[in-house]
This record gives sequence, C-alpha cells and structure tokens, in this order.
Amino acid sequence: MKYLHTMVRVTDLEASLRFYRDALGLEVVRRKDYPQGRFTLVYLAAPGDAGAELELTHNWDPEAYTGGRNFGHLAYAVEDIYALCRRLQAQGVTINRPPRDGHMAFVRSPDNISIELLQAGNPLPPEEPWMSMPNTGSW
Amino acid sequence: MKYLHTMVRVTDLEASLRFYRDALGLEVVRRKDYPQGRFTLVYLAAPGDAGAELELTHNWDPEAYTGGRNFGHLAYAVEDIYALCRRLQAQGVTINRPPRDGHMAFVRSPDNISIELLQAGNPLPPEEPWMSMPNTGSW
Repeated sequence: MKYLHTMVRVTDLEASLRFYRDALGLEVVRRKDYPQGRFTLVYLAAPGDAGAELELTHNWDPEAYTGGRNFGHLAYAVEDIYALCRRLQAQGVTINRPPRDGHMAFVRSPDNISIELLQAGNPLPPEEPWMSMPNTGSW
Repeated sequence: MKYLHTMVRVTDLEASLRFYRDALGLEVVRRKDYPQGRFTLVYLAAPGDAGAELELTHNWDPEAYTGGRNFGHLAYAVEDIYALCRRLQAQGVTINRPPRDGHMAFVRSPDNISIELLQAGNPLPPEEPWMSMPNTGSW
C-alpha cells in the first residue's frame, strides 16, 4: 500500500501555481488538460521527494469553494482493491464508488473525508459483486 | 523539502481508527495524548510507506465538522523556514503564523487550504522580523 497524493480543488490555476510552485517551491511533476471533461490536473511534489504528490484539480467552469469543497481527497495505491473493499464493507463502510472497473473506488471516513483507492499496476479483471454495484451518494 | 502529512480532524477517535486502521489497513506509527491541550494526535501510514503520514487530530471537546473543518492542512518539512517565508511574502502570501520560534509557520493557498511549514531538524535561532511578527487571521 502506498500513499499517492492529497487532492485540492483550485479556483485559479495560475494563482495556485504561483503559490504552490513559485512561492512554496514545489515542482510540477506532470500536467494534463482534459478538454472533454473541461478540467486540468497538475501534480506537484517537493524537490527530492517525488513519492508524495499534491494534486491540483482545476475545473474550467467556476465553482465556489466554500464549505470544504476546496479539499478533495486522500489517495492510496492498494495491492488488491477487491479484497480491501470487502474488508471495508465488513467494517460497515459504504463503498460509495465501487471498483466496477477493477481500478478505482471511493469511500468516506467517519468525518466524511473522501478516500480514493487505486489498484496498483494494471486493473483487475472485472468481477461481481462490484461490476454491477451502483454508486451510493457522492465522494 | 519533504512532504510530511495531511491532517484531518476526527470527531470519534475510535470510530476513526476502526476506519483508517482496521478497515483501510493503515498502521499507527505513533500516538500522543495532550491532556493539557485536551487533544490527541495519531499518525498513520500505509504499510511499507512510512514516509507519508496521515495525522488524525482528535479534540476532546466536541466540535461540529461541517463546512470543511474536517480537513486540516498539508505539512512540509523545509530546509530554511525563514528563507521560504521571505519568498512567500515576496509572492504576496500572508504569513498567517510567522515562524517566531524558528520552527513552525502557517500560510494559506489561494483557495484557503492551510499549509504548515516545519523547519527540518532543530529550530533556527529566533530572528527578526519573524520574532516580533503577530499572527494574521486563522489557519
């Protein structure tokens, strides 16, 4: 299991790069624009510490980030996303976004912190009951 | 510069340990109770990835975590906290909690994400203008 990133949403990407990159001194590891989805992701890391990233999500259509929407989620790579989701369920945790694709799931902490789980390496072959499990709530 | 942790506040520490430790599978790296301050800190990390921590802050006196207070801050260890705070100021960033002690500072991102800066190793000798700089706002 590996920590990947903390994601925060940003209103103004250039202002955020001035802050996180130019002022704070993080380095941009990669950037990807998604014109279809109208958003941009920028991953940054501390110089010499590439393992732990900060992900900036910039939605091109403005949102107001009051009420905690500025904070996104914590993300972890996991060895077996199905086994982990089974354990989470056994502990009474709702799988808000089931790993239908064998690749990605979302759950929430007791205080509503959103946690992203990503299968390490290639996605697992799709498998029931996850394949046909609908989403529950938001994450 | 090194990523240290993401801090989240938790209402119920036992429920949170059931989630983060027993269900998600993180390991408790250390725990410290602060009876004087009436709070407990628990640091967790993914097995085999001790470098990036999740910090749980449990305030013994209940708070309602709506409106984003559930998310705390991102923390980084930095080589020279004074030099970094100077650069941040030069970029127009308010030093909400100046490093009066040569050890710790807080700033906020353009979207109000709280960022904690900690001097790596021992604190630097106290130095002006930081020593006598008051706090600004909250963080």
